[in-house]
Amino acid sequence: NQEFDQNEQPHRRRNPLSGDWVLVSPHRAKRPWQGLEEPPARERLPEHDAGCYLCPGNRRIQGANNPDYRGPWVFDNDFPALKPDGAALKPDGAAQQSQDTAQDPLFASDSVRGLSRVICYSESHSATLATLGQQKVAALIDTWCREYQRLGQEYLWVQVFENKGAINGCSNPHPHGQIWASDRLPTLVAREDQQQRHYTDEHGSKLLLDYAEREWQAQQRLVCHNQDWLALVPYWACWPFETLVLPRFAVQRMPELTGDQRSSLAALLSELSVRYDNLFQTPFPYSMGWHGAPFDGEHQGHWQLHCHFYPPLLRSASVRKFMVGYEMLAESQRDLTPEQAAALLRQQPTQHYLLKEP
Amino acid sequence: NQEFDQNEQPHRRRNPLSGDWVLVSPHRAKRPWQGLEEPPARERLPEHDAGCYLCPGNRRIQGANNPDYRGPWVFDNDFPALKPDGAALKPDGAAQQSQDTAQDPLFASDSVRGLSRVICYSESHSATLATLGQQKVAALIDTWCREYQRLGQEYLWVQVFENKGAINGCSNPHPHGQIWASDRLPTLVAREDQQQRHYTDEHGSKLLLDYAEREWQAQQRLVCHNQDWLALVPYWACWPFETLVLPRFAVQRMPELTGDQRSSLAALLSELSVRYDNLFQTPFPYSMGWHGAPFDGEHQGHWQLHCHFYPPLLRSASVRKFMVGYEMLAESQRDLTPEQAAALLRQQPTQHYLLKEP
Ligand SMILES: O=P(O)(O)O[C@H]1O[C@H](CO)[C@@H](O)[C@H](O)[C@H]1O
Ligand SMILES: O=P(O)(O)O[C@H]1O[C@H](CO)[C@@H](O)[C@H](O)[C@H]1O
Repeated sequence: NQEFDQNEQPHRRRNPLSGDWVLVSPHRAKRPWQGLEEPPARERLPEHDAGCYLCPGNRRIQGANNPDYRGPWVFDNDFPALKPDGAALKPDGAAQQSQDTAQDPLFASDSVRGLSRVICYSESHSATLATLGQQKVAALIDTWCREYQRLGQEYLWVQVFENKGAINGCSNPHPHGQIWASDRLPTLVAREDQQQRHYTDEHGSKLLLDYAEREWQAQQRLVCHNQDWLALVPYWACWPFETLVLPRFAVQRMPELTGDQRSSLAALLSELSVRYDNLFQTPFPYSMGWHGAPFDGEHQGHWQLHCHFYPPLLRSASVRKFMVGYEMLAESQRDLTPEQAAALLRQQPTQHYLLKEP
Repeated sequence: NQEFDQNEQPHRRRNPLSGDWVLVSPHRAKRPWQGLEEPPARERLPEHDAGCYLCPGNRRIQGANNPDYRGPWVFDNDFPALKPDGAALKPDGAAQQSQDTAQDPLFASDSVRGLSRVICYSESHSATLATLGQQKVAALIDTWCREYQRLGQEYLWVQVFENKGAINGCSNPHPHGQIWASDRLPTLVAREDQQQRHYTDEHGSKLLLDYAEREWQAQQRLVCHNQDWLALVPYWACWPFETLVLPRFAVQRMPELTGDQRSSLAALLSELSVRYDNLFQTPFPYSMGWHGAPFDGEHQGHWQLHCHFYPPLLRSASVRKFMVGYEMLAESQRDLTPEQAAALLRQQPTQHYLLKEP
């Protein structure tokens, strides 16, 4: 009987956070690409852009004026997907309790109350997470923690995320992320909650803390690390260069991080995003975001804080992975293996390609 | 107490086929778009393109020569994501049984055996589902049925799908779709299986047959119909102009369709795709694909055959919906309501904008 070669043979891997499988087709990385090439991202932007609605002092679309801010600055989205006043209103036939299955099974609806905020990372129009530097990333982390603290008092779920790059749906290159809070647990988070709870019930330990330890032992999917944090390409990654940022200590929610743990996180996020940019010598597009225990007043000991990076690029700055067709209808599929992706990210220098000394 | 206005107020709706919720933010359709504009799709292509690896008589990348085919033509993908010889090989630690949870919960893997085929819809390089005409669409449906019949003898799951449009990952405009068969039930299909089974256990009827009847009564989400079929924007649609094609009679798998039901399906698919193209006067990009009962030798009475269309465009031929950030990390979100989308598609003429008589 032949031996199984995971770098050659199609196989499936299971994501323990979602329960979903991914189809891995490593041999397929060899196919030529004749489809859409993305336009190159602009690398050099001005420090201040008079036409940017996020730069300090500028006027926004709806007429508000930005303050002359320095460092992270947070404000309410002018076009929020969630509104704080939806509470009393119930859609037709919606049950009093969220996700009540006693509802009409074919037309189930639910009210939702929440808000959307925008968080500018820096006054500089041309900065990115990769070029901000560790100190300014630390200030960003502090701001995230404050927002979690404040919004978590009113809302069950606070979603901190960033869409980077025009090809990834970002409509303004000014470095910024978003915060959407709501009184409902979103679908994908509810699934992670259930999976982590089930694991802790079975094993008595935290899924993602056990996983971090196993990956630390195995080494082969690690991208970078320090005493507190690991960044790795998970065994079940869907996106070509997807990574997971994991604490090496037990922690449920971001505001619980100590000062030292915030500093070491800033170092790790800076290094990871520099490696990303260096991989294809381009401002690497991605969606990233944080998951932690919901703010329901419970301890939620099965939860472990973590951060997902989902970057779309596959082969170069202009060739992306499309999650279409088979992926939308059947199952996610990837070409190169997570181990190959991790090795490529590990090989990158830790100095940003645009910031090289002459 | 105010009345709930689903065209103004954020709310959530539940997809009974997946169990997922979608966040509906109708008020957000008013926001201006300053992000990426897609390049326009080329509307007029030659009948035959010497550089196209799918046109009759041309040489393919790996060296094979296409026959001088007319009408639908199917061949094995030169770069298949699935291979038929994986059977005997098991990844490290994989259990003998698929999806066996007795496996290592953090590193679960599974072998998979299958194949990928390409199906050219027509010898004409410039045709699309929308311009083929009903008779040629009927020939395509017959070809799908033959492939299901044949591959269903060897594989548990046969996924027929099409990626249309460069912005949707299609690498060649020659009208074609794909068929991926495998001996494993893919993740999203397993979820639909479970949800339909649960509904039938509870209600004694088929989820999607009951749903078709309810939508027929309600009318407001219908796009087009005939005696056998409905096309509608489902109550829980994620993509702006997502549609579901539903039979109005009980049927588990495509090859079970009668000659008349195939003809009426050809008429419906033609009309639906013409309406799509007319909406933004562009060859409408989409991923579409079929779901029916798995080929496991059982009756699978809870299953109802259906087809999903997932088109990315939002506001015009050049402005798409990005499923990023909140959608990847928390929950799908949409702007205009499914009812608004259905009304826009219903308003379209049924004659294709490129085929107008002078
Ligand atoms: O096989 P193709 O058409 O080259 O590839 C396309 O469809 C596949 C199946 O949906 C996807 O996995 C690819 O990402 C996409 O580019
Ligand atoms: O709010 P933005 O940045 O304009 O919009 C972007 O992020 C949102 C949240 O991920 C998505 O729903 C939109 O599709 C995307 O274009």
